[in-house]
Amino acid sequence: MEYAADVDYVSGKTRLYGIVGHPIEQVRSPEMFTAEFRRRQRDAILVPLHVLPDDFDACLPQLLKLANLDGLVFTIPYKLRACAFAAELGEQARLVGAINVLGRRADGRWRAEIFDGLGCVEAFRRRGIGFRGKRVMLLGAGGAGSAIAVAIGFQRPSSLQLFDVDNERAQALAAKLAGANAGVAVTAGAPTIDGIDILLNATPIGMLGDARLPMALGALPRELIVFDAIVKPERTPLLAHAERYGCTTVVGREMMRGQISRMTDYFLTEV
Amino acid sequence: MEYAADVDYVSGKTRLYGIVGHPIEQVRSPEMFTAEFRRRQRDAILVPLHVLPDDFDACLPQLLKLANLDGLVFTIPYKLRACAFAAELGEQARLVGAINVLGRRADGRWRAEIFDGLGCVEAFRRRGIGFRGKRVMLLGAGGAGSAIAVAIGFQRPSSLQLFDVDNERAQALAAKLAGANAGVAVTAGAPTIDGIDILLNATPIGMLGDARLPMALGALPRELIVFDAIVKPERTPLLAHAERYGCTTVVGREMMRGQISRMTDYFLTEV
Repeated sequence: MEYAADVDYVSGKTRLYGIVGHPIEQVRSPEMFTAEFRRRQRDAILVPLHVLPDDFDACLPQLLKLANLDGLVFTIPYKLRACAFAAELGEQARLVGAINVLGRRADGRWRAEIFDGLGCVEAFRRRGIGFRGKRVMLLGAGGAGSAIAVAIGFQRPSSLQLFDVDNERAQALAAKLAGANAGVAVTAGAPTIDGIDILLNATPIGMLGDARLPMALGALPRELIVFDAIVKPERTPLLAHAERYGCTTVVGREMMRGQISRMTDYFLTEV
Repeated sequence: MEYAADVDYVSGKTRLYGIVGHPIEQVRSPEMFTAEFRRRQRDAILVPLHVLPDDFDACLPQLLKLANLDGLVFTIPYKLRACAFAAELGEQARLVGAINVLGRRADGRWRAEIFDGLGCVEAFRRRGIGFRGKRVMLLGAGGAGSAIAVAIGFQRPSSLQLFDVDNERAQALAAKLAGANAGVAVTAGAPTIDGIDILLNATPIGMLGDARLPMALGALPRELIVFDAIVKPERTPLLAHAERYGCTTVVGREMMRGQISRMTDYFLTEV
């Protein structure tokens, strides 16, 4: 077929996935997931689906009826609203109260989970670093921060300290995590690196041109492991500061890769 | 971005098109339209959308609300039902009573047309053959046949003779065409090549392993032009017979190419 000669990536048999968001042009999931599907030799593609906020509740159930659609990713502003369309919520999603993925089970039901935090755990795992028994300081208890806190909580750190400029938000998250993770000392309060093994930034401070650090920092102990969830720039002011003191750093892009990988596992696992 | 390195064909900016059908795995539109979009340097993709018959009426309006969706192609069994979702029907579609495409206008409204017959006219045009003033015999007045008859009617042949095993169906189509094309002698009756310039087959006879001719034929005049809408095999028994007598033949694949080209024009033309 001369017409199809240069197109080997979509056909009537291709399984369909989508990312639902508003706006949609900036999302990176289409090329990232589609590349991951190819790497795993699956005939599948993930396309952008631009659903407007007023249409979301009517549109979602219909999208989920497409017989060749196997999964949806959700981004801003739909991670909370999408929960309503899940037949089953995963353990991370139940605690976070938001999802970023719906995957079709073998029986046709839609299960949901949030991988924002799992991507962070996966990034550390790929570096050979576990959270078990560690003393962790997390900056930021918003959308990304709470997902990261939940994922780390399930890894049984010895302590998890939360800071947010909105102290009430940090307190509420700490209370929820303490209830779900007996044996983990979860507290909310001022940012510190005293007695901390792993410092994580989940605030937007340091993004793009922002030269600030997300907390006041002087010299750092070499053993401190420092992570920043920010993707752009890759080397945030916090990570640059940590490198100066010889600390191990883990970058936002590693979390993103970890997330794509875990989400693809989720999509392609028959359950 | 290492992840996206091997995927340059879908991103958040890619405009979306779909083909809606049931079943869906056999359709060729995804690779054919997507290749045509690439050839025209458009960042667009056409994906299969498997909508089940019970879901069609609820699903369609929601699909049409996707803000990055610019067009839909319809195949079996939806060419009639899809009419209900068009704000405007093209002149071919009004007469055929079916559509195979919905395209988003610049003002957001959905216009519809059927290109099944226009593809046939386009295939002839590319061969430098017009229907104007010609005497045409068309075999088959079903879905494909009626679309072809309508498209040819608008080309002002001198006569258009229709045959169908269901004579009532042929009569009804002839009456409709006669009303719409004053000056064209449209009749329904037995198949013949007496005084015919162009013979077209739009029946399924000769498809795949079927060795039959769609009408009884002996020796053919060399000047007769013979067309078969069947795509598989490319050389149908009818076309093989015509070649034996030195006739010019036009194959189903040329009609398909003509259709893809005209439909892509339709999708990409701002109106």
